[in-house]
Amino acid sequence: MKATVLYGPRDVRFEERPDPTIIEPTDAIISLPVTCVCGSDLWPYRGIEPIGQPRPMGHEYCGIVEEIGRAVKGIRPGQFVVGSFATSDNTCPHCQFGYQSSCVQRQFMSGAQAPYLRVPLADGTLVALPEMPDNDLIPSLLATSDVLGTGWFAADAANVKPGSTVAVVGDGAVGLLGALSAKQLGAERIIVMSRHEPRQKLALEFGATDIVTERGDEGVARIKELTDGIGADSVIEAVGTQEAMMQSIRATRPGGHVGFVGVTHGVEIPGLELFFSHVHLHGGPAPVRRYLPKLIDLVLNGEIDPGKVFDLTLPLEQVAEGYRAMDQRRAIKALLRP
Amino acid sequence: MKATVLYGPRDVRFEERPDPTIIEPTDAIISLPVTCVCGSDLWPYRGIEPIGQPRPMGHEYCGIVEEIGRAVKGIRPGQFVVGSFATSDNTCPHCQFGYQSSCVQRQFMSGAQAPYLRVPLADGTLVALPEMPDNDLIPSLLATSDVLGTGWFAADAANVKPGSTVAVVGDGAVGLLGALSAKQLGAERIIVMSRHEPRQKLALEFGATDIVTERGDEGVARIKELTDGIGADSVIEAVGTQEAMMQSIRATRPGGHVGFVGVTHGVEIPGLELFFSHVHLHGGPAPVRRYLPKLIDLVLNGEIDPGKVFDLTLPLEQVAEGYRAMDQRRAIKALLRP
Repeated sequence: MKATVLYGPRDVRFEERPDPTIIEPTDAIISLPVTCVCGSDLWPYRGIEPIGQPRPMGHEYCGIVEEIGRAVKGIRPGQFVVGSFATSDNTCPHCQFGYQSSCVQRQFMSGAQAPYLRVPLADGTLVALPEMPDNDLIPSLLATSDVLGTGWFAADAANVKPGSTVAVVGDGAVGLLGALSAKQLGAERIIVMSRHEPRQKLALEFGATDIVTERGDEGVARIKELTDGIGADSVIEAVGTQEAMMQSIRATRPGGHVGFVGVTHGVEIPGLELFFSHVHLHGGPAPVRRYLPKLIDLVLNGEIDPGKVFDLTLPLEQVAEGYRAMDQRRAIKALLRP
Repeated sequence: MKATVLYGPRDVRFEERPDPTIIEPTDAIISLPVTCVCGSDLWPYRGIEPIGQPRPMGHEYCGIVEEIGRAVKGIRPGQFVVGSFATSDNTCPHCQFGYQSSCVQRQFMSGAQAPYLRVPLADGTLVALPEMPDNDLIPSLLATSDVLGTGWFAADAANVKPGSTVAVVGDGAVGLLGALSAKQLGAERIIVMSRHEPRQKLALEFGATDIVTERGDEGVARIKELTDGIGADSVIEAVGTQEAMMQSIRATRPGGHVGFVGVTHGVEIPGLELFFSHVHLHGGPAPVRRYLPKLIDLVLNGEIDPGKVFDLTLPLEQVAEGYRAMDQRRAIKALLRP
């Protein structure tokens, strides 16, 4: 098959790779009707996260089970499945505690920007749909695999509850779906920080009630102003930079919660400021597996349409253009069709 | 009156100071049957937290109302009251949210190592007892003012619940009372890190089930060992150093909680490690006012005896010896009698 490999900064190649095969008896092979580029793929693409050797890219996936290892019991060929970017046995103490992305057997997926994918720990990792979904739902199902699951975890980690006032730092696909998640969790007010018109529009569609275009200290001041000087109950940090983290902590009311899901790069949190902020801080790689059954239901029932974050569709062979468009912020998120 | 003033590192003086008087109409003046030295007083005493000018010391207090300002409505002369180290109006949005130590009118108390004290915002800050307490309960009532209130907040911030496994980093009075609080909140297992025999003994008396004498990475490994490799559900950080913070984060299970109440000095939390730890982090200056009514009840009903942390009693005029004894770890906490 032909698949996506990153060789170095801005060097994405679509090249011949061996077809994936069953290696462990707990593996499954799935075929992918669609795949996509993640905001976190841009860290190595931009050279901010150096890669040692060429890296097969892609970790968001859904598709049809083609083959299973002999130890797989709960998943059958022909089923349509969704999995997370982190594999999990779903039985270890961390999984049972709801933190499947800290599973003792966790592996981070790669190689999903391809027509076929090997999924380890298939029984624990994959969630099978009751039947084959309509084609037009597939982008939204793909979104549950990471970008929605991560936005949902961010909202949950930020303790969003009915009536909450929520601020979202970061207008990438995760931030936008954080707004959608906050809406689903009953937030009354959802303030999205964005200065990019198409993203503002989608944020409003997903449930944002206010848009703040200011950044940094001015952005914090604006959120304070919008909340009678109190600060937001919950802030979703969906960027991963020092600026975004500090903006999030400072925009939160004392006793409020920051849910941070941007993969942190070079972030150092000053202990004394965190101490006096009285903020709760929780985040990390989203335990998407915990939320998948619910998120899949919401998509199948037509209650949410997270696939709207895909504003660019390309044939998989043009994957490099998908990266370029996202890097240059011409696209929110690129959908790729093998 | 004569009262305690810190002039510089290890320079504690007991000297003539003006008697406190009503300044604001919301003030009260109280007389103090006992007072004490706080672990956090040791930061400026040791010169780690430099002071610009001579500082009247002491912020833990309980006693008898002698005089009130004309705007004070809920507190009467003759009542026995307890207050927090942070004043609060108890009506602002932060107070109503349970974070009185972030009150918009907050002042940090000082000058309580003295026979008399002015308490601002008396109505919001002070909690009056229904009647004069027995003398032998007064040390425990004094403990609710800060050291127990802070330990209790730490346990609450660390999400201690019935059945929890809790680890306590720091065997000072706050850590020890964190163990007592965890016990009261229903923890099943309470692991206290201490290599100091009298403190170990008191920890066990307060409800500790295990003592760990190792520190740093070895201490973390020992906690992992004691928890089947999982880590503690809840960790109380009651020191405030980088080492204690990292030890706390690393000893916590993914999805678990660190409650940090040691006043952080030079702590920088590495974002990426926090991200992958999946730990919840919450702390700060304890909103003691939130817990005071409950803690006072527990003392008056004889259910807890937090005053046991006072293992040295001195006349107030020997306050400098109280500092020395705590600095040299000859005493856990010094009680002073004016």
